[in-house]
Amino acid sequence: MSLGPITGGTLYGVGVGPGERDYLTLRAVAVIRAADVVAFFAKKGGAGTARTIVGDLVPKGRRELPLHYPMTTERPPHDPVYREELAAFYEAACAQLADELSAGRSVAVLAEGDPFFYGSFMHLWRRLVGRFPVEIVPGVTGMSGCWTRAGVPITWGDDALAVLPATLPAERLTAKLRDADAAVVMKLGRNLPKVRRALAEAGLTERAVYVERGTMHGERVLPLSEKEDDEAPYFSVVLVPGEGRRP
Amino acid sequence: MSLGPITGGTLYGVGVGPGERDYLTLRAVAVIRAADVVAFFAKKGGAGTARTIVGDLVPKGRRELPLHYPMTTERPPHDPVYREELAAFYEAACAQLADELSAGRSVAVLAEGDPFFYGSFMHLWRRLVGRFPVEIVPGVTGMSGCWTRAGVPITWGDDALAVLPATLPAERLTAKLRDADAAVVMKLGRNLPKVRRALAEAGLTERAVYVERGTMHGERVLPLSEKEDDEAPYFSVVLVPGEGRRP
Repeated sequence: MSLGPITGGTLYGVGVGPGERDYLTLRAVAVIRAADVVAFFAKKGGAGTARTIVGDLVPKGRRELPLHYPMTTERPPHDPVYREELAAFYEAACAQLADELSAGRSVAVLAEGDPFFYGSFMHLWRRLVGRFPVEIVPGVTGMSGCWTRAGVPITWGDDALAVLPATLPAERLTAKLRDADAAVVMKLGRNLPKVRRALAEAGLTERAVYVERGTMHGERVLPLSEKEDDEAPYFSVVLVPGEGRRP
Repeated sequence: MSLGPITGGTLYGVGVGPGERDYLTLRAVAVIRAADVVAFFAKKGGAGTARTIVGDLVPKGRRELPLHYPMTTERPPHDPVYREELAAFYEAACAQLADELSAGRSVAVLAEGDPFFYGSFMHLWRRLVGRFPVEIVPGVTGMSGCWTRAGVPITWGDDALAVLPATLPAERLTAKLRDADAAVVMKLGRNLPKVRRALAEAGLTERAVYVERGTMHGERVLPLSEKEDDEAPYFSVVLVPGEGRRP
């Protein structure tokens, strides 16, 4: 199948993969090089993770559009005030993108990992799809980068895989881990103590591997049981590799 | 991080993505172009799916090593005779690869999707790791290609995702679907009637999307409820998109 040229007025949701620049796809590189505008999420004053990953693939002098999201540390995601702040942010970002697209410019929005897998990009997409042509460029997920660098195949044979946000309530996390053949626990942050308890209750502590910043600068891989503190950044996961059929 | 040059005597497990050639990563392309030997699984007389995906990225005249796996249609995967046949096949394939690696040649084994996610490559890897240097090149998974082409983000907010082989027993499939926020059912083949029943019992029929050969030649996307027959090739999935938090 041919994916065709990069077209003015089209919104591109571009997965930039787990961190290592060489894990970008050919299509992602082509879109990033050709798009009239390159947009990305960033904290105010920060460079933005996705933008950092693509580095100098963005041609010098290209129009860049950082989307500064409201800080999330002070309010939990279910707080209605925070939800409203976020909604207002997405609305404002979409207004900016719509201006570019309406003027006939192609816009590449950079997304860490894969755009349709837990991405903030999806909140832009759902507001713009139908109004403008869209192309999604899938990417290597963060979890894939993590199990690659940990050197552990995640699923074998008929293994069922559970992908679980660490933000789930403790009981639900434990129940799901107990029932899983293989698991990836994401978004660790402050939830690592809870995740440790859930793994222990499910009898999975021995199998758990901790990966921090997989394929990025500062990568760390170790058995979870050897990790002594409970500090875990957002870009860290726990892997529980499957043990399915191995002829 | 720098991934370094392609090195003689090293085994490369190269994810070639879901089907579309432009979804290969830069690293996959570099390895495929430079490796002394390109190996891939294929049915006897067939071209091999992964080999077909990479097309003319393999330089003309490059040494190619097709690994002809025993046919699987006559015996179920748990049949001990089939298991022994498969084991003998992997042993023989590894002997071939070990000969190349011992002679100081770099070998790229092509793997559909991501090498550490349900891949046959893992059965070669576990026999060769420790004996030879190994580099895994992660890839865009087949399921990612499918949700991209279906135009459905798979997980939002705190959605838990269940990845389920359709080969699971009916009751287990139903229970897991019932408990999932979002799901991908893979390896449909002859299991589609069972998968339909499990989705119906879990109340998910309306949300299910059927994708056949996502990003490959002959791609089809439709609501599962509109698919009239129960013919599904190996490269087909059912997606149940999540409905999580959307500020």
